[in-house]
Amino acid sequence: MILTDSLLDFFLETRKHTEEICAPLEIEDYVVQPIEDVSPPKWHLGHTTWFFEEFILKPHAENYQLFNDDFAFVFNSYYESVGKRVVRSNRGNLSRPAVKKVYNYREYVTRAVKELFEKEQHQNLYPLLEIGIHHEKQHQELLLTDIKFILGNNPLLPPYQKDFNCHQPENHLQEWIAVDEGIYEIGHNGNGFAYDNEEGRHKVYLQPFIISNKLVTNHDFIEFIEADGYKKFELWHAEGWDWVKREEITAPLYWHFIEGEWHHYTLQGLVKVDPNAPVTHVSYYEAFAFAQWKDCRLPTEFEWEAAQSKFSWGKRWEWTESAYLPYPNYQKAAGALGEYNGKFMVNQKVLRGGSTATPQKHTRPTYRNFFQPPLRWQFTGFRLAR
Amino acid sequence: MILTDSLLDFFLETRKHTEEICAPLEIEDYVVQPIEDVSPPKWHLGHTTWFFEEFILKPHAENYQLFNDDFAFVFNSYYESVGKRVVRSNRGNLSRPAVKKVYNYREYVTRAVKELFEKEQHQNLYPLLEIGIHHEKQHQELLLTDIKFILGNNPLLPPYQKDFNCHQPENHLQEWIAVDEGIYEIGHNGNGFAYDNEEGRHKVYLQPFIISNKLVTNHDFIEFIEADGYKKFELWHAEGWDWVKREEITAPLYWHFIEGEWHHYTLQGLVKVDPNAPVTHVSYYEAFAFAQWKDCRLPTEFEWEAAQSKFSWGKRWEWTESAYLPYPNYQKAAGALGEYNGKFMVNQKVLRGGSTATPQKHTRPTYRNFFQPPLRWQFTGFRLAR
Amino acid sequence: MILTDSLLDFFLETRKHTEEICAPLEIEDYVVQPIEDVSPPKWHLGHTTWFFEEFILKPHAENYQLFNDDFAFVFNSYYESVGKRVVRSNRGNLSRPAVKKVYNYREYVTRAVKELFEKEQHQNLYPLLEIGIHHEKQHQELLLTDIKFILGNNPLLPPYQKDFNCHQPENHLQEWIAVDEGIYEIGHNGNGFAYDNEEGRHKVYLQPFIISNKLVTNHDFIEFIEADGYKKFELWHAEGWDWVKREEITAPLYWHFIEGEWHHYTLQGLVKVDPNAPVTHVSYYEAFAFAQWKDCRLPTEFEWEAAQSKFSWGKRWEWTESAYLPYPNYQKAAGALGEYNGKFMVNQKVLRGGSTATPQKHTRPTYRNFFQPPLRWQFTGFRLAR
Amino acid sequence: MILTDSLLDFFLETRKHTEEICAPLEIEDYVVQPIEDVSPPKWHLGHTTWFFEEFILKPHAENYQLFNDDFAFVFNSYYESVGKRVVRSNRGNLSRPAVKKVYNYREYVTRAVKELFEKEQHQNLYPLLEIGIHHEKQHQELLLTDIKFILGNNPLLPPYQKDFNCHQPENHLQEWIAVDEGIYEIGHNGNGFAYDNEEGRHKVYLQPFIISNKLVTNHDFIEFIEADGYKKFELWHAEGWDWVKREEITAPLYWHFIEGEWHHYTLQGLVKVDPNAPVTHVSYYEAFAFAQWKDCRLPTEFEWEAAQSKFSWGKRWEWTESAYLPYPNYQKAAGALGEYNGKFMVNQKVLRGGSTATPQKHTRPTYRNFFQPPLRWQFTGFRLAR
Repeated sequence: MILTDSLLDFFLETRKHTEEICAPLEIEDYVVQPIEDVSPPKWHLGHTTWFFEEFILKPHAENYQLFNDDFAFVFNSYYESVGKRVVRSNRGNLSRPAVKKVYNYREYVTRAVKELFEKEQHQNLYPLLEIGIHHEKQHQELLLTDIKFILGNNPLLPPYQKDFNCHQPENHLQEWIAVDEGIYEIGHNGNGFAYDNEEGRHKVYLQPFIISNKLVTNHDFIEFIEADGYKKFELWHAEGWDWVKREEITAPLYWHFIEGEWHHYTLQGLVKVDPNAPVTHVSYYEAFAFAQWKDCRLPTEFEWEAAQSKFSWGKRWEWTESAYLPYPNYQKAAGALGEYNGKFMVNQKVLRGGSTATPQKHTRPTYRNFFQPPLRWQFTGFRLAR
Repeated sequence: MILTDSLLDFFLETRKHTEEICAPLEIEDYVVQPIEDVSPPKWHLGHTTWFFEEFILKPHAENYQLFNDDFAFVFNSYYESVGKRVVRSNRGNLSRPAVKKVYNYREYVTRAVKELFEKEQHQNLYPLLEIGIHHEKQHQELLLTDIKFILGNNPLLPPYQKDFNCHQPENHLQEWIAVDEGIYEIGHNGNGFAYDNEEGRHKVYLQPFIISNKLVTNHDFIEFIEADGYKKFELWHAEGWDWVKREEITAPLYWHFIEGEWHHYTLQGLVKVDPNAPVTHVSYYEAFAFAQWKDCRLPTEFEWEAAQSKFSWGKRWEWTESAYLPYPNYQKAAGALGEYNGKFMVNQKVLRGGSTATPQKHTRPTYRNFFQPPLRWQFTGFRLAR
Repeated sequence: MILTDSLLDFFLETRKHTEEICAPLEIEDYVVQPIEDVSPPKWHLGHTTWFFEEFILKPHAENYQLFNDDFAFVFNSYYESVGKRVVRSNRGNLSRPAVKKVYNYREYVTRAVKELFEKEQHQNLYPLLEIGIHHEKQHQELLLTDIKFILGNNPLLPPYQKDFNCHQPENHLQEWIAVDEGIYEIGHNGNGFAYDNEEGRHKVYLQPFIISNKLVTNHDFIEFIEADGYKKFELWHAEGWDWVKREEITAPLYWHFIEGEWHHYTLQGLVKVDPNAPVTHVSYYEAFAFAQWKDCRLPTEFEWEAAQSKFSWGKRWEWTESAYLPYPNYQKAAGALGEYNGKFMVNQKVLRGGSTATPQKHTRPTYRNFFQPPLRWQFTGFRLAR
Repeated sequence: MILTDSLLDFFLETRKHTEEICAPLEIEDYVVQPIEDVSPPKWHLGHTTWFFEEFILKPHAENYQLFNDDFAFVFNSYYESVGKRVVRSNRGNLSRPAVKKVYNYREYVTRAVKELFEKEQHQNLYPLLEIGIHHEKQHQELLLTDIKFILGNNPLLPPYQKDFNCHQPENHLQEWIAVDEGIYEIGHNGNGFAYDNEEGRHKVYLQPFIISNKLVTNHDFIEFIEADGYKKFELWHAEGWDWVKREEITAPLYWHFIEGEWHHYTLQGLVKVDPNAPVTHVSYYEAFAFAQWKDCRLPTEFEWEAAQSKFSWGKRWEWTESAYLPYPNYQKAAGALGEYNGKFMVNQKVLRGGSTATPQKHTRPTYRNFFQPPLRWQFTGFRLAR
């Protein structure tokens, strides 16, 4: 366990970083919710704050006064245990509380947490504090992703930050890494923070496989488009094909074909697609269809974890073939915190790695992210295996 | 026709009043769109401005520079003739242009119109300017109605203005006014401004009828609720009954039953329902069912117009039994202005009168408002006839 | 009032005719419901029977035994007063009761009604019997229309009857009939049967108008298609235009463009469109848009009634511009029979005339049919006025 | 490979059995499709026939004449490679081809297949014929399941067969079977028929676990209901909980609470629930929630396969915790047959075992069935593990 000082510093630094992410926004950008999966930035600011108030201050800080009795209702997400939540698709209809008030709320709660831990050690609360920090880091990633969606779906295509560093070509050559058949240990080894869904280190038996040292690039993906990959049903899952037709998908999210060339909206604004950069904003369905087209497949999350030390990663969340399921002996935490991971373990795919939007110290080889197969607003890419 | 000076004054005063309506808002309130029928206040500000730019400045002001090329796209409403519009249900997803920019746009266009008419008479443009002013006045009413919906559906129920004057009991006794059988003249007589849908003054034959001198009150409507009016299918139209069940309607919009008493959200905030004030925020379906329950009916718009001089009105838009149809010899204006009224003449009901939210000089005995039967977010009431 | 004998004959002949309409069907055709507006033929057979059982036999025939206790549930339509109905869109999921059983039910009820009236005069029941007969005649029309939809939407396009007489060109020249301004009497005069919605004969004042002596033909409508009428938004109501785009409408219902020529499915099977026959299976939206394109309009139902003696009609139901509203002094019948007409008096358009599918003795100059504006499965056409 | 004679016998016997399943039906029962997942019996009869015509007769039988050119269109299911299919939710709207015609089609194709194999050995076609037979057996199971749904959702609740044997209590005591940690071989060993999704026998590493020798019973499940299991969100996956609320689920499919006792519709008609019989017609969500409530879990498909020899099974399909994913080295067959299994390998759960409705010779320890988590119309049960 991290010592108090550094944990408190970690807390304060995390709280500050969230606000730095929002610095380039107009007040108006904090409010809207263009699709159900995206939350208004204001809501992320309030929700990460409410988490500390609800689970640390309310039960453990003596004489703590709630900042506002109604905020639990407004900023709760899916924690069914702690009261009636605001229905998710309604979040974008809430003009109040005003952004300024939400910043006041943040300041009030940050200070109260600081005072709580400065007054006394409260070692028993470290795990809760730590989970709250990691929860906020997760929301930092979502915040950036959601901001991109909000601005990237505005007809004016306003940039977020003209100099935001958003894509990194992998400049080495593509090679296949071979991994031997045998028993591998999977899951977190107990050093440092991990979520409950990574724990329960256990053995899996892997067949021999090869895996690419590079992510699939924009260049590769343009070839797929030009080979009519979006029109060949035999490359797709049945539900992927329905999705392509229903949503009229013809390219990754944010891509625009302008005067004969592919452009895409990035946090810097609209730019030409860099052929050498990894493709991003594709759904699992698209990743799967591309792999079929190449007579390859996606790695399982176990293969990925077994091989990950041999390639660089962390710029794109990578779709795997694995469904998001509990590890052996997985046990949900009791109470509301138990709602964190376990309740999503059906009909989602595991992603491994991390992205441009992932805050520092927030990913590791055993980290398991998860999304429904059609989602594309995350910085999602993929690598091939066979 | 109004003389130039007073018309320009009327224009400037109207532009100013729109902004006064928005003065109590937070920036965040300008952005959201909780349901499709409600537009974000920011959009009303931009759209009324775009109207003058599109129909007056762009075609008639020499060397006029558009404020922003994209704004026609963002602020067009249903004018299909003048380019691709923003799909209505998407308006609430647009954080940009920022509110400040929209105010700049207003100022830029107001000044350009002012200069145009100060430089030269442009008498030929008076009808267009006048229609633009009345268009903005219509949006002032919608603005207030939409603001009420935005705040009244926020779980914090923030007041708009603590001292807003929103309900006016009619203190005289209820009486029946008798109107004789015969031929009546209906429609605008040509003095002063009127919309095209009021013109074509013509004769109608009315059977004898009686009509109430008072609007139905909250007290009356509470009796209907307590007599299980919302549960008696035989009082309702088939589609009204489907609506009651599907939407789980049990009271007028904004009503809350708190500790044994009816309250409602008003622009002053949440207050107790005043039994003597006219009921408001009811749909046509509810008005019809109430009338059935009383063995009465709603007046037609012709009956209303024939009788209106004998009662006070203008506090609530009043549902009539009449469908919104063209008067004899109605002719749509050519081009985009023809889209103003004619294209809505199906499946809507006529409302007569005016409301708390109706700006001054914006209603008259021949004015025809119109809405779909289930809509309730306008200040809609009704009176009985037989 | 019709004398007993002839009324009973009328009843028996009507019952028989319903079954004659179904004679060409396969058992399977009785069961399906391809869209909500269409009911399975089996249901029509049962529902018209249930009407006599429910309103005549059950309350008035001594010791009457219900044929089957569950049939009221299965064959009730929208009569909310008499128990829980089968939700309309579920009708096509009911394979039982089998068709044979439904015919047994018909026979059982027909015989019981016959015996009831043979045993005693029961003059007081004549109006009920008469309404039941007319109810069944209305369903005969729907039966044929629904059968056409069921077969015409089957990919095999099976004919109903190879020699069915389905279209009748009007061979006289097109002329405009002029009608003078003045007061006209509208509504049923009390001789013979009429529905309650036709009663309340009353005066209306009409402006002068001209009306065509012919229905719009297929030839005319093909010109509209070729002039891109379905692509010109300015011809359409706003909600009509949304309908055209949403439903991707490009021609009347049942029309197919095959090898350069327009064909349509008829009760005889697939045949070429006869240019001289009146166009049919168009919605109100299409009729309105066509009239706009011709700088004409649709007649109101009052104009139609005032002029009808001067033209031949009865081959197509004709859309009018009138909304379906109660006549002055309209009073719903008490109880379940009151649900017959009054509850539909909102958001529907009046049709006048009669069609190929209308049984004999079932229409008259004052008859008011009504449908929602987008519906096209009836034999609907239109004539122009100005 | 099975020798010709017995394979042809197997074919003929399978064809005959399909028709035996339909023997108790009325013609009307063959036509309807109450929900999208259920197909009309007529369609099963035609589709299984089309399979032999399309994949065996059309390419391999000399001078073969198609029975009807349109049938490929009507009876294709999801085989996108072989032409435009009838949209699934439309199947229940097709009254034609008539049932009799479909039986003619069956006879025609059965005879043609018989003649083809009697004339010549055609050993190369054995695998295709075999897959066609197993395909038809799969549809026999669906046929019975779909018939149950069609009759069990009819308000008259008609029995299928008064003496159908539909539930079998497991009369032995409940015990826990312990399985050791270690490497297990999973998948088909190559003897006899198997689908491609079972092949690729491979090693998996299992942690130690215990698994029940009995399926969960109706008695157990009633306890769950009475303990408010359907109201405790903490037992459910997030999407399971949404499903419970949206669909208002309070008991397994076909259960009715009548005068204080649980009844359910069975193929024998409506009967009281037998407490000792295994619960059936539950979704994966319900199975999971029940297991949570018992502090247990569902077995994975690998655990089930490793332990299956120690318990009796085959009366209920059993939900497992495993997502339906390809085994290592899984390779889709080329062409249309490749659409059989691979395209469904996303967002489905594996079921193991077999049911009352499963035809003889149609299941085995390695058989992998799969359905979406909310589906309940199959005979689905479950056993617990830990």
